[in-house]
Amino acid sequence: MTTPGSVPTPYLRVDTARLRANVARAAERAAAARVGLRPHAKTHKCVEVARLQLAAGAAGLTVATTGEAEVFAEHGVEDLFVAYPLWPDAGVARRLRNLAGRVDLAVGVDSVEGAHRLGSTLAGAGLAVLVEVDSGQHRTGVPPADAGAVAAAAAEAGLAVRGVFTFPGHAYAPAAGATGAADEAAALATAVASFRDAGLEPDVVSGGSTPTLESSLAGPGVLTELRPGVYVFGDAQQWELGSTGPEDVALTCRSTVVSHTGGRVVLDAGSKVLGADRPPWASGWGRLPAYPAARVVQLAEHHAVVDLAGAPLPPLGARVDVVPNHVCAAVNLADVLWADDTEPWPVAARGRNG
Amino acid sequence: MTTPGSVPTPYLRVDTARLRANVARAAERAAAARVGLRPHAKTHKCVEVARLQLAAGAAGLTVATTGEAEVFAEHGVEDLFVAYPLWPDAGVARRLRNLAGRVDLAVGVDSVEGAHRLGSTLAGAGLAVLVEVDSGQHRTGVPPADAGAVAAAAAEAGLAVRGVFTFPGHAYAPAAGATGAADEAAALATAVASFRDAGLEPDVVSGGSTPTLESSLAGPGVLTELRPGVYVFGDAQQWELGSTGPEDVALTCRSTVVSHTGGRVVLDAGSKVLGADRPPWASGWGRLPAYPAARVVQLAEHHAVVDLAGAPLPPLGARVDVVPNHVCAAVNLADVLWADDTEPWPVAARGRNG
Repeated sequence: MTTPGSVPTPYLRVDTARLRANVARAAERAAAARVGLRPHAKTHKCVEVARLQLAAGAAGLTVATTGEAEVFAEHGVEDLFVAYPLWPDAGVARRLRNLAGRVDLAVGVDSVEGAHRLGSTLAGAGLAVLVEVDSGQHRTGVPPADAGAVAAAAAEAGLAVRGVFTFPGHAYAPAAGATGAADEAAALATAVASFRDAGLEPDVVSGGSTPTLESSLAGPGVLTELRPGVYVFGDAQQWELGSTGPEDVALTCRSTVVSHTGGRVVLDAGSKVLGADRPPWASGWGRLPAYPAARVVQLAEHHAVVDLAGAPLPPLGARVDVVPNHVCAAVNLADVLWADDTEPWPVAARGRNG
Repeated sequence: MTTPGSVPTPYLRVDTARLRANVARAAERAAAARVGLRPHAKTHKCVEVARLQLAAGAAGLTVATTGEAEVFAEHGVEDLFVAYPLWPDAGVARRLRNLAGRVDLAVGVDSVEGAHRLGSTLAGAGLAVLVEVDSGQHRTGVPPADAGAVAAAAAEAGLAVRGVFTFPGHAYAPAAGATGAADEAAALATAVASFRDAGLEPDVVSGGSTPTLESSLAGPGVLTELRPGVYVFGDAQQWELGSTGPEDVALTCRSTVVSHTGGRVVLDAGSKVLGADRPPWASGWGRLPAYPAARVVQLAEHHAVVDLAGAPLPPLGARVDVVPNHVCAAVNLADVLWADDTEPWPVAARGRNG
């Protein structure tokens, strides 16, 4: 515990009442739709947040990397899915084998060659695989109709095939947002059919993202599980997409007004604390809850230049909160999150990229 | 020391021969122009790199934050300039007072109110101030003609006024790049005249950035010191601006090909290791030395989707190096830099934003 106001700016702060409400709301909606929730822990990388999610009924956690899986396993999380098409070298394979001996571990695969690689390095280790399919983001994942072939290759390579997953990340673009959940549903239905054609039955059919969460739950179809991440905190992207209201944003960056020169407000919150993410459709580099019309119009490593849209300038030295555009990026820059400005929550998996 | 090839991807690697050549080249050119070099350590945040710069004749280091100053002071650097208009709260003022008692410490100021704040919290602590002027970036800094008034306020507040500084950051836009050094020279000349009108003489007249380095040294005018940062490593921005050739880039991210789906190459180097910086004029989210025509066309937290411009796809599992767009952002995401793939150099000041 520390005294409120004594943490030097800029720092990330968590409103734990809002965090708990966000965790509970998603858990309740998923339970009502009879869809499992496996939150993506890349957003928070934080054991304290993971415990809230698991206490609210999460089936386990999703992570992006072997290193993240190791951190959460060390802190007692027993069911982990690395939602990524891993290509393990000898060292990573050793780490995965060790992990699979301690927790329920699943990893992604999106190619026949990847299935062979996992089989040759990890068959018999007790880990499961899920086949990734592309539902429209065109990042990783095979075409849904090819899911069965990859699943069959994995099974032949001696791996336990648990199911199929996708990430409808293209729903982050407002123009595609409306179809994100429908694309997800269609891709997963095709993938399930492809599994069955190959003589396999997926136990887990996993989708989800924060902007598609509500629509995925409204008509889950073949879905058995969702993997949203950002919903716990919200961010300026979700605010602008309409999937998190500003009143539900649970993580902000507290900053200090350091300059007024030229009639501008400059804050000491730069890209090294907020992150530099800015999709083309975003209106700036962050939003200010106290000034909904304001925009961060210029962002440098240690400077946010704010256009206050005509509001009176807060004085030099005043403290101002900024909502980062992309909370996952901001959290990965911080060593701790300050819960209610007083309690440091370590970002235990920060920087664990490999 | 570790065995080459045993570090899991993605990781940042430093080619120390190139690093040493970059450090030596800038040091020699500054010495020939009789301009001091005070490299900006926010780029590397690394004691090992700072020692190379100081051994090559650097006058001291520039840093962006009180926390960075503390880290380098702890490691024996005795001359530090926080090139930022600090507005210290009570805790930061205590830390600055402590630092000023141990090293030669200077900080920035860009308002009369800021001078009063520094005076009321730090007069008598033995720290010096430099007035920041705006040479065209329109971020922080007073108009150059107002420099004398801020300097006079600082002197009246009991502070030692050392001089004036600017950062011609607008030179990062190719359209303005040609005039960056000229704008810097004009702003600093006006600021010096403004100091003299106020009866003050600046000992230090400080400018500089990596893209303007050569032109600033070609006609230093009133300049006594330059503060480039990125020149030690280079990055994709400097490559595209023409200020660092690809053959001089000393820091890359080593990554693994994890997916071929859809005929694309996807690497495990995402924004959580490369950073998400992308100025509007950049051609992508990073460059590949082995594929000069290739571009990173999509970047997510753990995925770089690469358009290889027709080159044959490297196989799954192959290792590929990526040059980050902005090396300062990439370094601030890493706990260590792997020197020549074998020696871990801690990023000692990583995340020290306040």
